[in-house]
Amino acid sequence: DSKLKLFSLNSNNPLAQEIAQEMGVELGKSSVKHFSDGEIQISIEESIRGCDVFIVQSTSAPVNEHLMELLIMVDAVKRASARTVNVVMPYYGYARQDRKAKAREPITAKLVANLLETAGATRVIVLDLHAPQIQGFFDILIDHLVAVPILADYFGSKGFNSDEVVIVSPDHGGVTRARKMAERLKAPIAIIDKRRPKPNVAEVMNIVGNVEGKICILIDDIIDTAGTITIGANALLESGAKEVYACCSHPVLSGPAIERIENSAIKELVVTNTIQLSEEKKSPKIKELSVAKLMADAISRVYENKSVSTLFD
Amino acid sequence: DSKLKLFSLNSNNPLAQEIAQEMGVELGKSSVKHFSDGEIQISIEESIRGCDVFIVQSTSAPVNEHLMELLIMVDAVKRASARTVNVVMPYYGYARQDRKAKAREPITAKLVANLLETAGATRVIVLDLHAPQIQGFFDILIDHLVAVPILADYFGSKGFNSDEVVIVSPDHGGVTRARKMAERLKAPIAIIDKRRPKPNVAEVMNIVGNVEGKICILIDDIIDTAGTITIGANALLESGAKEVYACCSHPVLSGPAIERIENSAIKELVVTNTIQLSEEKKSPKIKELSVAKLMADAISRVYENKSVSTLFD
Ligand SMILES: Nc1ncnc2c1ncn2[C@@H]1O[C@H](COP(=O)(O)O)[C@@H](O)[C@H]1O
Ligand SMILES: Nc1ncnc2c1ncn2[C@@H]1O[C@H](COP(=O)(O)O)[C@@H](O)[C@H]1O
Repeated sequence: DSKLKLFSLNSNNPLAQEIAQEMGVELGKSSVKHFSDGEIQISIEESIRGCDVFIVQSTSAPVNEHLMELLIMVDAVKRASARTVNVVMPYYGYARQDRKAKAREPITAKLVANLLETAGATRVIVLDLHAPQIQGFFDILIDHLVAVPILADYFGSKGFNSDEVVIVSPDHGGVTRARKMAERLKAPIAIIDKRRPKPNVAEVMNIVGNVEGKICILIDDIIDTAGTITIGANALLESGAKEVYACCSHPVLSGPAIERIENSAIKELVVTNTIQLSEEKKSPKIKELSVAKLMADAISRVYENKSVSTLFD
Repeated sequence: DSKLKLFSLNSNNPLAQEIAQEMGVELGKSSVKHFSDGEIQISIEESIRGCDVFIVQSTSAPVNEHLMELLIMVDAVKRASARTVNVVMPYYGYARQDRKAKAREPITAKLVANLLETAGATRVIVLDLHAPQIQGFFDILIDHLVAVPILADYFGSKGFNSDEVVIVSPDHGGVTRARKMAERLKAPIAIIDKRRPKPNVAEVMNIVGNVEGKICILIDDIIDTAGTITIGANALLESGAKEVYACCSHPVLSGPAIERIENSAIKELVVTNTIQLSEEKKSPKIKELSVAKLMADAISRVYENKSVSTLFD
């Protein structure tokens, strides 16, 4: 019988701690330091020979630093004779570079998958990939968890009158996600359909679906600079919405995001803790929900060789 | 007939420019930018279909940033239908993590080799690897250039009386390098042999060879925090050396390095430009020699399918 070992790297230690607590295990002893010249120095301070090792790391900003930490840790774990090397990535960075949109672009999301395999990962556990197709970038096993139930339960607990609620996708690419949320809340959906009538002419926001007098819940996978979501919120209010909430799985919140959200019509932004929010990014408008139990369940089920698919929705 | 294209990334643009000038070519049009969240965005702004592409990048600090730039560029070049993807790394970061010195350590130098191959590199050109064995970490073609002739020629031009000069290795690991330099300058060698008589007792510096009244030239591959080299210089003077010079291929010069060198007995530190020195690292004591011609020759010979081995020493 092999033993489970759970390690945390530097991107999201609070989440890793919470996962460990949920599972009733201690985090493995390891450290990530830097040599004087900035090179990463990893040391694993306990035997992991023959163990099933799970490494928790989000490749959030600084993404290159966090990714290299992860690759070097996977190398060290593999060379320390672990039985399996399972990479738990609550947030998968570079996911938006998942295709050649223009000539001579890299496909960095695929590169990252290849790098993880090359380093020695035997399985990855991810959550709400920007595109579910990224699963197919891996030749190793991959489990894809979704946070929609966690987000939906939170809004469900607000006791809104269910025929007052509309779930809104901020663009046509996110309709499937909105549909999933709507099913759980037994609410209809609407779509913000942006169109540019001519090149160099401002986009027109067209709302497909009825939002008049409704409580709108905008849902996206990633909120980065928060442009789309805050402009979308305004468009909804202009179309007669009563209130606008927003939610996402991954609060990247870079650049002007916090300012935009604080100055926006959004009543509350609900996010998960797949990405650790720095102190400057905490805001009274932002509510953080934990994915620790979901991730803990997934890790336990993988370790016990049980199906993880029940956690998919 | 295929065309040669030379690209520069961000770590050492001045060297890449100089290489291009030596070769009489223009650098290829490309840009490395960052998205708002810090993810790298690379774009190649000219066709490279069917070309032999050479990418110049040192993985100097910030090493993880520079390494990811390189991997993503290699991916983009490969997907843009280049015929060959040649990585020119004047400085190979993570080279000191080339073996398991303790239990459960990663071998990051090997990981980096694997990552480059996985990204799509078809050949690499490097200079003075910390250990020549790192060549064997690659399954793709590798050319290993050495800077000793450039350093030796510089000291040769000083017109020292040749029986006054001793080439000194700062530790027993660097004796082969010192020997090569000594051969070119027709000088004898000496070795600084550090020993710790008991644990937790200060190291004893023992000089093997005659340095009394001599002009000593310390040679190392990397000078990082400059502790070894400055302590070594003192030991040489205490043993009666007349003057101490130092030289290295790769001026990492992190942490206290510049201060230590400026306050040391070293008369002049001679380095090459494999690593770009930031303004704060420039010092009147530091002389920079260029490897541009050496690298340009290597690139031309690889492109013309000629032997590069004449550039090895
Ligand atoms: N980190 C990033 N931040 C903003 N845009 C990105 C990022 N990574 C990739 N992209 C771009 O976003 C587009 C994909 O986003 P999407 O259409 O939402 O799938 C691609 O054209 C990418 O060039
Ligand atoms: N960037 C670095 N800075 C300082 N020491 C390092 C670095 N990378 C690796 N090392 C350590 O240096 C040792 C190898 O140096 P050497 O004995 O000179 O080959 C190994 O034990 C490494 O742990």
